[in-house]
Amino acid sequence: MSAEAFRLHGHDLVDWIADYLDGVEDRPVTAQVEPGWVRRQLPPEPPERGEPFADVLADVERIVVPGLAHWQHPSWFAYFPANSSGPAVLGELLSAGLGVQGMLWATSPACTELEAHLLDWMVTALGLPEVFRSDGPGGGTIADSASSAVLCALLAARERATAGAINCTGIDRPLAVYATAQAHSSIEKAVRIAGLGSDALRTVSVDGEHALSPAALDAALEADRAAGVEPVMVVATVGTTSSSALDPLPEIAEVCRRHRVWLHVDAAYAGVAAVCPELRWIHAGLELADSYCTNAHKWLLTNFDCTLFYVADRAALVGALGILPEYLRNAATASGDVIDYRDWQVPLGRRFRALKLWFVLRHYGLEGLRAHIREHVEAASWLAQQVVAHPDFTLAAPAPLSLVCFRRLGGDALNERLLAALNDSGELYCTHTRLDGAYTLRLAVGGTRTERRHVEAAWARVTATAARLVAHPGAQRDAEQPV
Amino acid sequence: MSAEAFRLHGHDLVDWIADYLDGVEDRPVTAQVEPGWVRRQLPPEPPERGEPFADVLADVERIVVPGLAHWQHPSWFAYFPANSSGPAVLGELLSAGLGVQGMLWATSPACTELEAHLLDWMVTALGLPEVFRSDGPGGGTIADSASSAVLCALLAARERATAGAINCTGIDRPLAVYATAQAHSSIEKAVRIAGLGSDALRTVSVDGEHALSPAALDAALEADRAAGVEPVMVVATVGTTSSSALDPLPEIAEVCRRHRVWLHVDAAYAGVAAVCPELRWIHAGLELADSYCTNAHKWLLTNFDCTLFYVADRAALVGALGILPEYLRNAATASGDVIDYRDWQVPLGRRFRALKLWFVLRHYGLEGLRAHIREHVEAASWLAQQVVAHPDFTLAAPAPLSLVCFRRLGGDALNERLLAALNDSGELYCTHTRLDGAYTLRLAVGGTRTERRHVEAAWARVTATAARLVAHPGAQRDAEQPV
Repeated sequence: MSAEAFRLHGHDLVDWIADYLDGVEDRPVTAQVEPGWVRRQLPPEPPERGEPFADVLADVERIVVPGLAHWQHPSWFAYFPANSSGPAVLGELLSAGLGVQGMLWATSPACTELEAHLLDWMVTALGLPEVFRSDGPGGGTIADSASSAVLCALLAARERATAGAINCTGIDRPLAVYATAQAHSSIEKAVRIAGLGSDALRTVSVDGEHALSPAALDAALEADRAAGVEPVMVVATVGTTSSSALDPLPEIAEVCRRHRVWLHVDAAYAGVAAVCPELRWIHAGLELADSYCTNAHKWLLTNFDCTLFYVADRAALVGALGILPEYLRNAATASGDVIDYRDWQVPLGRRFRALKLWFVLRHYGLEGLRAHIREHVEAASWLAQQVVAHPDFTLAAPAPLSLVCFRRLGGDALNERLLAALNDSGELYCTHTRLDGAYTLRLAVGGTRTERRHVEAAWARVTATAARLVAHPGAQRDAEQPV
Repeated sequence: MSAEAFRLHGHDLVDWIADYLDGVEDRPVTAQVEPGWVRRQLPPEPPERGEPFADVLADVERIVVPGLAHWQHPSWFAYFPANSSGPAVLGELLSAGLGVQGMLWATSPACTELEAHLLDWMVTALGLPEVFRSDGPGGGTIADSASSAVLCALLAARERATAGAINCTGIDRPLAVYATAQAHSSIEKAVRIAGLGSDALRTVSVDGEHALSPAALDAALEADRAAGVEPVMVVATVGTTSSSALDPLPEIAEVCRRHRVWLHVDAAYAGVAAVCPELRWIHAGLELADSYCTNAHKWLLTNFDCTLFYVADRAALVGALGILPEYLRNAATASGDVIDYRDWQVPLGRRFRALKLWFVLRHYGLEGLRAHIREHVEAASWLAQQVVAHPDFTLAAPAPLSLVCFRRLGGDALNERLLAALNDSGELYCTHTRLDGAYTLRLAVGGTRTERRHVEAAWARVTATAARLVAHPGAQRDAEQPV
C-alpha cells in the first residue's frame, strides 16, 4: 500500500471510528446474531487477488459490526469494563505504525525505557510502594493481562521458594498456592500451567464480605508446612471479580512474612482507582507484597492490553524466565546496564505498548483520570443507595468502588429472568455471579462514555423490568434467552 | 477526547506514520543512544494536567524516534523480520477503535468467528493439512507469539500424555520433551514454565545441515521409555532461527507416531513461505503433526502480534486450559455451539487480532503475498550465490528460503569485528549466531520495503568492509562496539 493510499484509507478509517464511537450509544449493546452467522457472510476461500480498501471497510460495517458486543457502549455494565479513549487508540496506532519489536533493549531502547519510566510514573500516580520502582531491585512491566501477570508471579515465587532448583529438575516436591474461592480463575489456570495441578490451590475461607480470612490462611499454611508441603504463593485480591471484595492486605502480608511465602496482590480491576488519593486505602499493606498488578485496560482509559505488573525483586522473575541463546546476545545485554523485558514474560516478542499509556497520561493528566474514576465511583455509590432503599431489592455485597451486586427478592429463577430480559432489551448489558450460593446481578460502572444518566436509566429499567416480570410471570419467555 | 479532536489528531498521526515509513530508509537502522538516554529526556513525574496532543507528537519525534531500532527499514536484516504493511496497521487501528474484548464468543461473536474463519483460510492459503481446519476436531487460533504457541502445545501434550491427571495432581512422574540444540529458546522456556524443568529437555543431535536426526530421536525416546520417563512432546522446526534448517518432518512424524508422542511443528519464520505452491515442500509430513505454528507477523506483512497456531485435536488444548467460573457462564458457551478462545491461550482477554490479518489478505490477495515472498527468496538465493562464488567468504549453512548465513575466512574475531563495523555504519543491521562452534553472520531478507537492490547494497558493504578490516586490522576499533 503506497504512502498516499495509506493516508487516504487511514483518514477514512479514523473518521469511521470517530463516527462509530460517537454513535455507539444508539446500537443494541450486545450482538444480535446466532452462532455461525458471521462465518456465513464470509467467502469460503481466501481472495486470490487484492480488493479495494473501500470494499473491506464496507464489509466491516456489514459483517463485523452486527457481530460485535459493543464494549465501548455507555450502557456496558458487564464483566469489568475494557474502556478505551482517543489517545489510547492513537497510541496503539503509532505502535503498529512504527512496527518495532522490543524483546531486547537493543531492539528499540525507547520501547524498553519508556515502559520502565511509565511504570515508575504509575508508582507515583497510584501511590504504590517505592519498592516497585525500577531504580531499586524491583520494577514494573506491561503484561498483556492479569492472567499472565499471576502466572509470571507464580513462576518467580516458585523460583525463589525452591532456590531455582525446579527450573532445572522440574517439580519434585508438593507445592501449594493460596487464595479464596472469590479469587480470579486465572490463579487456577496459572497453577495448572506451572505444573502444580489444581489440587495445589488451597481455597482459603472468607469472611461475611467475601474477603480472605487471615486466620484461615495462617492455619492453612501451618497445616501444609506440617504435612511437608511447600507453600509457594498467596494471592490476595483487591477488588474480586464477583463482588469487588477487598482482601485485608496488612494482616495477610503479616501472615506471609511470618511463613516466608510470596504475596501476589491482584488488583486487576480496582487498583487504578488509587489514582484518587482518597481511594488509596485499598492498597494499605501493599508495601509488604512481592508482586502486584492492576489493569490500565479495564478502568483507566487505555485499550486492552495494558496490565501493569510489578515485582519487588526482579531477580526471581528473571531467574525463572531468562534464557539467553547465542542469537540474542548483544553488547547492551552483556553490560548489565539495561532491562531486557523478554525475561519478564512468557512471549519473546513485545509490542510497544507503553505508547498508549503515555498518550493517555499526557492527554488527561492525573487530574483528568481522577475525575473519570470519581464520576464512576459516585454513580455506583448512588446506585447502591437506590438498591438499599428499594423494598424489593437487596444489595448482595458492599460496593466500595464501581461494582454494584444486587438481587430482586424472589429467588434465583426470577433474577435469571430479570438479567435475560434486561440484556435482551439491547439497552444495557450486565452479567451475573453467585454470592453465598445465590444468583446475583453485577452492574459494573466504568465505560469511557458512561455518565450518571446511564446508570440512572439502567436502574429505572431494572426496577421496571422486575416489576413487569413479577406482574406477568409467564410473559415473554421466548425473548429471554441471553445471547 | 472529542470526536472532532480524534479526527484531527488521527489524521495528523496517520500522516506522520506515512511520512515516517516513507523516510525510514534515510535513518540509521539502529538506535544511536546510550542506555538511559531516553529516560533522561522524560520528566521524573507524570503530568498533573493534560497536555496538547501536538506536544506529545513532538516528543515522539524528539525522544522516541532516536531511541528506535527501525524494524521497518529496508536494510533491516537482523533476527527475523517483523514486517508490517498499511492494511495491517489499519487493521490494528480498527481493533483498538472498536475496543472489543473477545475472551468468549458471546463477548463479540465476530471476533471469534472471523478468527476461526481466517485460520481456515490460511489452511487453504498455505496448503496446510485439512486436519487443522475448524470443521473437524482441530482448529486454529491467533496467539501472540510462537513462544506462547509452543507453551500451549506442551500443556495440551501434557494433558493428553497423562490423561488429564497432571492438571489436577501436578507433575508426579518424570516427563521429557525433545528438540535439537538449534530449536528455539522458547521451547526451554516452555519446559521450565510448565514445571518439567530444563533437564527434561532432551537435546537431539543433528545432521550436517543442522537438522534433527530421526534415528537419534528414536533412540532418545527408546531410552527414556526404558528408564520410566514419559515422553510428552517432540518439537520439529521448519526453519530454525540460527540457519533456517528444516527438520525432516516425515521421518520425525513416523517416529512420533510409533512412540505415541505429541509432535509440535514450529515453523514460526518459514511456514508462511508456503503461500507459494513451489515452496510447500517445506511442510511435507505435516499431516501427522499434532500442532503447528507460523507467524504472520514475521514475513507475511502483518504487524506483531499474529501467530497462527493450529491443533489437530482441540480437546486436549481446551482440557488443559479451560476453566469456567460462574461469572463467565453464558447460554452460547453452555450450548457447545461456539468456540471460546480464552480456553486456547494463557490470558483470558483477547484483542481483535483477526482484523489485521483479514485486511492484509484482502488488500494483497494471495497473489500479492506470493509475489512478496518470491522477491525475498530470489534475493536471498542471489546473495547465497555471491557468497559461494567469493573466494574469501563461505556459506555457513544451506539457504533454502530467505536467510543467508555466512562467514569471512579468517576466524571468529574478524567476523565479530565485521558485524560490528557493518552495524555501526547505520546502513544495515544484521545479527549473528554460532554454527558448528563458529561465529556466523545472519542476513535475513524479509522487510516490507526490502528489494533486491538493498540486498545488493548490503553485500557490497559486507565485502568492502571485510576488505578494509583485513587491510587495516587495527583501524576504527573504538567505533566498532555494537549498540
